[in-house]
Amino acid sequence: MRAAVLRDGRMVLRDDVAEPVPGPGQVLVGVKACGICGSDLHFAQHGHKMVELSAEMKGLPGGDGARLDLSRDVFLGHEFSAEVLDAGPDTDAPAPGTIVTSVPALLTATGVEPIVFSNTTIGGYAERMLLSAPLLLPVPNGLDPRHAALTEPMAVGLHAVNKSAIERGETALVLGCGPVGLAIVAALRHRGVEHVVAADFSPKRRQLADTMGADEILDPAQGSPFDTATPAVVFEAVGMPGIINDVLRQAPAGCRVVVAGVCMEPDTVVPFFGSAKEISVHFVFAYDFTEFGESLRAIAEGEIDVAPLITGEVDLAGVGAAFDELAHPDQHCKVLVAP
Amino acid sequence: MRAAVLRDGRMVLRDDVAEPVPGPGQVLVGVKACGICGSDLHFAQHGHKMVELSAEMKGLPGGDGARLDLSRDVFLGHEFSAEVLDAGPDTDAPAPGTIVTSVPALLTATGVEPIVFSNTTIGGYAERMLLSAPLLLPVPNGLDPRHAALTEPMAVGLHAVNKSAIERGETALVLGCGPVGLAIVAALRHRGVEHVVAADFSPKRRQLADTMGADEILDPAQGSPFDTATPAVVFEAVGMPGIINDVLRQAPAGCRVVVAGVCMEPDTVVPFFGSAKEISVHFVFAYDFTEFGESLRAIAEGEIDVAPLITGEVDLAGVGAAFDELAHPDQHCKVLVAP
Repeated sequence: MRAAVLRDGRMVLRDDVAEPVPGPGQVLVGVKACGICGSDLHFAQHGHKMVELSAEMKGLPGGDGARLDLSRDVFLGHEFSAEVLDAGPDTDAPAPGTIVTSVPALLTATGVEPIVFSNTTIGGYAERMLLSAPLLLPVPNGLDPRHAALTEPMAVGLHAVNKSAIERGETALVLGCGPVGLAIVAALRHRGVEHVVAADFSPKRRQLADTMGADEILDPAQGSPFDTATPAVVFEAVGMPGIINDVLRQAPAGCRVVVAGVCMEPDTVVPFFGSAKEISVHFVFAYDFTEFGESLRAIAEGEIDVAPLITGEVDLAGVGAAFDELAHPDQHCKVLVAP
Repeated sequence: MRAAVLRDGRMVLRDDVAEPVPGPGQVLVGVKACGICGSDLHFAQHGHKMVELSAEMKGLPGGDGARLDLSRDVFLGHEFSAEVLDAGPDTDAPAPGTIVTSVPALLTATGVEPIVFSNTTIGGYAERMLLSAPLLLPVPNGLDPRHAALTEPMAVGLHAVNKSAIERGETALVLGCGPVGLAIVAALRHRGVEHVVAADFSPKRRQLADTMGADEILDPAQGSPFDTATPAVVFEAVGMPGIINDVLRQAPAGCRVVVAGVCMEPDTVVPFFGSAKEISVHFVFAYDFTEFGESLRAIAEGEIDVAPLITGEVDLAGVGAAFDELAHPDQHCKVLVAP
């Protein structure tokens, strides 16, 4: 079957990928839509760095980034919706034709395989893939599968907001309005936070922040967002070196900083800024099952409208070009791959 | 009167400091004992850096480090106990002779003056100083004023432990067993935390950690503390560049890191380590009034024995030499100045 895979830093189309065969507890699905994540783009460019850092890092059970072999093809695609086609032996699965989504993980006899970056576990940039029956969430309310594919990135936003423990009356400042920042804006609005300020250099992204419900939209080129807002919580969704220290330097005393951007470069901070103001910094990465389910429910019930975030759609042959185009973030937010 | 002041990076004895005169709401006290804090030593060496960083930093109401003039004498000394001598006009104060302590702050008509580093507000390295009547805490139970002087550093430990929200069944790892690390060990023991691991390169400090109640004492020269302990909470009480990143790299997933060390140097971290493991980093600095009072109570009622921490005592003329000697931390923990 066909799949787009990462080879030597580029996404290429293969038509010779072995058809996946579901084992016990597993389900064969046909991918309906899979979003391209910023982490996919980052991994395509800096995958070797992630493998190195994962090897260096202790204390992450199942952190298998270090086991990746970048000289072999890598399957990507973790923001998917799919249609049930078949089930493995002795597997209690939804009926064929059911539209589902799932946290990006495959249960196997030897453990949990993340469906994120893998030499062996096929991801959502493929015609078909395997999922685990116990993890499947049927997509309710006849929700468009293209919208259901945004369950995962929107869950990242919900999780970031939950970790911040923000109260409705507190001011939130979201720095960076890419897909993660916009998911955070949507989650803050969904939680009922009354004063959501969003900042981005890109006019297109500022417009999307407005659409997703930000109360105030700032262009950092016109002045520091901290000159306008006095946030109780800052959501850092930029992920570039320098931003964390700039937040520590400018944030008000007692501020909670949620770092949702992922920066793999060494970064310089002045710890004294954090100390003198007793700032707390919460690194966030993913979500739990409850948050994933809540994300799907909120989208399916129309509480969070993800339609404006979808700015493009390509087929498997177009993944490579889409990765190139997404290097210019001003043109796009979320691009879906529809195999 | 006499006071030891910071002049050109050295502590020098003056005998011509103007006698302080209490205004309304203020009390004149005779200093009984004042502990030398690591931040005093750091400020003596790197005061210019703190002034620069404070000027650069936004968002700290009353953060007046930037107003210090290092070309003039600076009064230090914020860990004190004292005897009430006299009170200002219309001031409801404890009777003369009462032994008191106070959070290191002076209320004036124009605002709150920290009694930490100041060109004008006299600190505890002096014969006499001013305190604010509403902030005074009488020292109970006939507690030795030398021990009461440790209320402040022990409150720093209590605050760090409170901020961590550690539960009794969770493992704590304390990195660095200087006065701050030891105050944290004592506070963890006081809170009933059942597994307290402490690490320091110095044998003397490891011995003090044992005395203060650590369950397990590690020498980092013999191997990473993270090879032995799997802490839910890490207390970083070293304050040197590199330590935060090393903790992020080695700590288990979901770990809370409390940064109690104060590092004024730019420091390098790899944010990915924090992201991949969803670590939270809580910078702490001081304490609140309740914690300060609780610290005094716990010492006065014998729940925390601070006597082992006191490793030396000098008079005002000896402050300069004590500052020099404390550059070799292996010999000392807390040195008191008794004017």
